[in-house]
Amino acid sequence: MLRTHTCGELRASDINKEVSLCGWVQRVRNKGGMVWVDLRDRYGITQLIFEEGKTEAALLAEAGKLGREFVVKASGTVIERVAKNDKMPTGDIEIKVAALEVLNAAKIPPFLIEDETDGGDELRMKYRYLDLRRNPVRENLVLRHKMGQETRRYLDAQHFIEVETPVLIKSTPEGARDFVVPSRVNPGEFYALPQSPQTFKQLLMVSGFDRYFQIVKCFRDEDLRADRQPEFTQIDCEMSFVTQEDILNTFEGLVRHLFKAVKGIDLKEFPRMSYNDAMRYYGSDKPDTRFEMKFVELKSPQGERVISQNNPDLVSGKDFPVFDAAEAVIGIVVKGCAEYTRKQLDELTEYVKRPQIGAKGLIYARYNADGSIKSSVDKFYSEEDLKKWASAMNAQPGDLMLILPGEADKARKQLNELRLRVGSDLGLRDKNTYSTLWVLDFPLLEFDEESGRWHAMHHPFTSPKPDDMALLDTNPGAVRANAYDCVINGVEVGGGSIRIHDRATQQLMFKYLGFSEEEAQKQFGFLMEAFEYGAPPHGGIAFGFDRLCSLFGGADSIRDFIAFPKNNSGRDVMIDSPSTIDSKQLEELSIAVSLKK
Amino acid sequence: MLRTHTCGELRASDINKEVSLCGWVQRVRNKGGMVWVDLRDRYGITQLIFEEGKTEAALLAEAGKLGREFVVKASGTVIERVAKNDKMPTGDIEIKVAALEVLNAAKIPPFLIEDETDGGDELRMKYRYLDLRRNPVRENLVLRHKMGQETRRYLDAQHFIEVETPVLIKSTPEGARDFVVPSRVNPGEFYALPQSPQTFKQLLMVSGFDRYFQIVKCFRDEDLRADRQPEFTQIDCEMSFVTQEDILNTFEGLVRHLFKAVKGIDLKEFPRMSYNDAMRYYGSDKPDTRFEMKFVELKSPQGERVISQNNPDLVSGKDFPVFDAAEAVIGIVVKGCAEYTRKQLDELTEYVKRPQIGAKGLIYARYNADGSIKSSVDKFYSEEDLKKWASAMNAQPGDLMLILPGEADKARKQLNELRLRVGSDLGLRDKNTYSTLWVLDFPLLEFDEESGRWHAMHHPFTSPKPDDMALLDTNPGAVRANAYDCVINGVEVGGGSIRIHDRATQQLMFKYLGFSEEEAQKQFGFLMEAFEYGAPPHGGIAFGFDRLCSLFGGADSIRDFIAFPKNNSGRDVMIDSPSTIDSKQLEELSIAVSLKK
Repeated sequence: MLRTHTCGELRASDINKEVSLCGWVQRVRNKGGMVWVDLRDRYGITQLIFEEGKTEAALLAEAGKLGREFVVKASGTVIERVAKNDKMPTGDIEIKVAALEVLNAAKIPPFLIEDETDGGDELRMKYRYLDLRRNPVRENLVLRHKMGQETRRYLDAQHFIEVETPVLIKSTPEGARDFVVPSRVNPGEFYALPQSPQTFKQLLMVSGFDRYFQIVKCFRDEDLRADRQPEFTQIDCEMSFVTQEDILNTFEGLVRHLFKAVKGIDLKEFPRMSYNDAMRYYGSDKPDTRFEMKFVELKSPQGERVISQNNPDLVSGKDFPVFDAAEAVIGIVVKGCAEYTRKQLDELTEYVKRPQIGAKGLIYARYNADGSIKSSVDKFYSEEDLKKWASAMNAQPGDLMLILPGEADKARKQLNELRLRVGSDLGLRDKNTYSTLWVLDFPLLEFDEESGRWHAMHHPFTSPKPDDMALLDTNPGAVRANAYDCVINGVEVGGGSIRIHDRATQQLMFKYLGFSEEEAQKQFGFLMEAFEYGAPPHGGIAFGFDRLCSLFGGADSIRDFIAFPKNNSGRDVMIDSPSTIDSKQLEELSIAVSLKK
Repeated sequence: MLRTHTCGELRASDINKEVSLCGWVQRVRNKGGMVWVDLRDRYGITQLIFEEGKTEAALLAEAGKLGREFVVKASGTVIERVAKNDKMPTGDIEIKVAALEVLNAAKIPPFLIEDETDGGDELRMKYRYLDLRRNPVRENLVLRHKMGQETRRYLDAQHFIEVETPVLIKSTPEGARDFVVPSRVNPGEFYALPQSPQTFKQLLMVSGFDRYFQIVKCFRDEDLRADRQPEFTQIDCEMSFVTQEDILNTFEGLVRHLFKAVKGIDLKEFPRMSYNDAMRYYGSDKPDTRFEMKFVELKSPQGERVISQNNPDLVSGKDFPVFDAAEAVIGIVVKGCAEYTRKQLDELTEYVKRPQIGAKGLIYARYNADGSIKSSVDKFYSEEDLKKWASAMNAQPGDLMLILPGEADKARKQLNELRLRVGSDLGLRDKNTYSTLWVLDFPLLEFDEESGRWHAMHHPFTSPKPDDMALLDTNPGAVRANAYDCVINGVEVGGGSIRIHDRATQQLMFKYLGFSEEEAQKQFGFLMEAFEYGAPPHGGIAFGFDRLCSLFGGADSIRDFIAFPKNNSGRDVMIDSPSTIDSKQLEELSIAVSLKK
C-alpha cells in the first residue's frame, strides 16, 4: 500500500509514529508561516501541518499551493495537536509532514465536496463520481453494503440458498412493459429483462430448493415518475412447505435483524391489519402507523367492503345536501388543534382540493377548550349534533375534527392524504421512529377501467384464499388472496403471497385474467407443466432493496442510495446513455430504427 | 411449516417422537404386506414404513399407489429400523406413518431423478427444474451459494464495500459485441448491457470508495463456443493506493480463504511466473502446474521473446531439413514412458496433427532402460547426438522425449496441447489436486492480423510498466503491462491490472489503439474527465465466478453450476427464449425487425 494508515485511524496513542497517508485535499489553510491541510479519505480526515522553521521551505511552499481535491501522499510524524478538536476522531493529533507527493492534481470541482453542497441535481448527476465523495452520499452506499451483508447473513443462517436466476429471459405482455434485447444469433427474436425472477423462483421450489433468496436487479420500462428507476434491486425470497404464517415470521425476523444489526434498534412484534381495515381506518393499503389518527365514519357506506362498525348515520337528514348525497362521511380528530387559525384551515382545504387529491372541500369542527363546538357547517348542525360527532370520534375539548364526504373509496384516499399532511405538520412522522405493520388479505383481483377486465392485484401466480374460491364467478372483487405487504412508516417495503402450485388452479386463474388458452400456454406453459411434476406448496416475498435502504437512511428518495442512478427520462447523464449505436450493430442484430414522425 | 423436521435430520435419538415430514417420493418398494417409501427433500432421505396389521389397510393401499416424485406429507412416529443403513445419515430410523397426505401428484418424469440419470442434455435442459432435483446438480448450486457467501465474508472483513453498478449502460464498440436494449423513452437510442463494470468501478475509485467489490452479472454477445454463456458472473474488485503486490496479496488471500472455508484445503503460497516464462516453459499463459514437464529448447529462437537460456543449438547442421528450417525445436520429457508402444506414439502424433493443433508431425526419442536411445530421427542423429539431447532435457533411462519443431510461437502452443494430453493420459491432472499460479507481466498490446492494428491484451485502461513506456513507439509488442492472471490447474480464474489514472496517459493509450480523438471522447470522455478531478492510483481484478465454482466442484463445464443456463445457440429451451415479440412492443420501442434474406 502507498499508505501505512488511513485518514481515519490515527489517535493520541500513535504519537511519534512515522506514517504515510494518502487522500484528497479537503481544505488548505495558509497563514504564511503555517499551512494546515485536511486530508480526506473514505475513513476520515487527518490534519497535516507544515510550519516555517520546522518544515523545509520548498515543502512549505508546495503545501501552500495544493488545490482542493488534489490526491496526495504525505509522510511524516504523528504529533500531538496544540488545539485539539474533539469533534473529529483524529482530532488529538496531526502529521508533521516530511515528504509530500502529489499523486494527481485536480481541476476545481464544479461544486463543493462538502456535506452541504452548492451543486444542483443535474450537475451532481453529471459529476456523480464527485458527488459520491460527499459524506452523506458515501454513507448511504456504505449503509446499503451493510444491509446487503446482513440480509445474506440472516437468510444464510435460516438455510436459504442464494441462486442467480437469468437476466436474459422471455418477454410476457402481462404487467408492466419489458425491456427487450434483440438476439443476434436468433434473428427477429428478443430476450426480455426480468421484472422479477417470479417464475424462476417458483421453478426452484419445484426443484426442491426449499428456501431460495437473491438480491437481484429487476427492470421495468415504465413512464418514470419521481423516484422510480428503470433498474432496481429486490431481496427476492421463496419457501416451500409453508403457510402464510411461516413467511410472516421468517421475514419479520429478517427486518428485525436488519434494524438490530444495522441501526441497533429493537423492534417490537409487527402488528397485523387486514387490507379492508387498512383502507377503512387509514384510506391506504400502506398506512403510516407512526401516529394514530384513525378514520371515524359519521356515515358508513352501504356495501360489502364494510366489515363491522355500528355507527349510526350521524349526518343525514339535516338538509345539508353534501352529506345527504355522500356515500360516506369520514373524519379524523387532530388532537389539541382546536385553535388552528382560519389560515391554517384554509391551507388544509386548499391542500385536499388540489387536483392530485381532488376533494371538493373540507368540513371542520373545533371542539373548543370551553366545551363549545364550532363547525364550518353550523348552518345545518346544532351543537347537540356536533357533540354526537365528537362523541363518535372520541374528540376531547381542545381537539379539531376534519371531515370529508363523498364516494367512500375516494373520500378515504383523500382523507389519507389529509391525515398524512396533518401528521407531517404536527411532527408525528419522525424519520427516526419506525412503525412496522403487516397488511394481510389483499383482494386477489382489481378491476381495470381502461382494459375493462380484472387484473391480478399482486400477480397471476397468487393463490386465492380457498374459502373465497367460490366467489370467483359471482363476485370476483370480493375474493381475497393469501397476499401480504410489509409496511414501515407508510412505505410498502415488501410484498408477497402464497402461490398457486397446481396446474388446474393456475389455468383457471389465467382464464379469469382474460388469457386465452393459447396465450397462457405460450407464455407460462413451462410453469404449468412444471406444476404437473410434483410442485410443493410454496410462497414468498420480495423487498424493494433501494426503498428499504432509503428508509434505513432516513431519506425520502431512493436516488442517493443508488451509486449511479438514472434521471426521470431514464438517462444516465454522466455517461450520456442511452445513445445511438452503429448501423453495423443494428444490421448484425437484424433490427432497424423506425422513428415515428 | 407443514413439517416438523426435514428429511435429513432424524436420528436414533429422535426415536418415539411424533413427526411430520414433507418431500418427494424417491422410491416405493411394495412387498404386498409391507411398503417402504423413500421420502426426499433438499436435506436428505428418510424412509417411511407401512406394514400390514400395524398400518390401516386404506393407508397401506394408498402408500402402495404413490408414484415417483409425488409430493407428500407424512406424519407418524420415529422408530428404530430393523435393518440399519449406515450409508445414509437417517439410516438408523424410519417413520411408522399414521397419516399421509398427497400435496401434489406427479407425472412420470421424463428422466430418472437419480445421481446417474438416463436423461440426455437436451431433455435435461428442457426440464431443468427436474434436473435441478438431482443431488449432483443441487450440490453444485449449494457450493456456489457458499462460494458467494464466503467471498463476501472475506472481502467485507478486508473493508471492501459491495456497490451495485448499473446494468443499463452505454454501448462501446471496443472489445466483444454488446447486447443492446432499445430505449422507448429515448427513441432511436439504446442502452447496452455491461461486459464488465470496468469504467464504473474505476469511477468509484475516483469517488474515494477505496475498496470496491461486486458479484455481478456481465454480458457478452459472442458466438458461443462450448462452455461460454451470454450472461456470466464475475467477482469484480478494485482498490486504491495500491501497487500490484498489494492486489496479488489481497486476492491470493481471497482464493486461499475460499479453499479453506469451502473445501477445507490449506493452499501454499502461490508461485509467480512471468508471461514470457509461461509461454517459454509451458507454451501457455495459463499453464497447468499440477505437473512439471517443462519445455526444453534444443534449438532456441532468435528473438526478443527469449530471455535467458544458454542452450546451444543441438539439432541444426545434421542434414535434417525439418530441424534446420525450424525457428525452434522444443521438447518435453515424459518420465518413465520409454516403453510407450508404437500405437501409443502414433496416437500422440495423430493428436498433434489434428487441425485444431496443427503440428506437421512429432519426433520422439526413447531413452531405454539399458541406456540406449532410439529415436524417430535416427537417420540424422547419432546416439551421441541424442545423448546430448537427453542431457539438455535432463532425461533419464526409462524416459520418453517428445519433440516439436517449427515457428517458435506455434511449436510452443502445439507442445502445450501435447503436454496437457500426456499429463491427462498419465493421470497427472487430478481434479482434487489444486495447483495455483500468478502469471505476471503480460504484454500491454497484441497485434490483431484481421484489423491490422494493435489491440489491448487486457483492456484499454491497463497501465503500461513505466520502464517500458519508451518502447510504445518503437516496439509496441515488447511493452509489458502491470497485468496479472490468477491460474489454477491450467484455468485462468481471474485477471486484472493496475490502471491508468491520468488523462494524458489514457489519451495516449487510446491513440495507440487507433481511436480518433473524437471516438475516444465520445465513448470514454466521462472517464478521462473524471481523471482530471483527482483520481487516485488504483488497480483491480475480476474472477470468473462460474468458472471458479466449477473448478471447486471438480467439473470441466460451467453449465451445471448455473441454475438456468442457455444452450450453445444462446437459447433457454425450458422457457423457449428468445422469442418474437408483439408488433405493438416493437412500435413503442421505435424499432423494426429487419431480417436478412
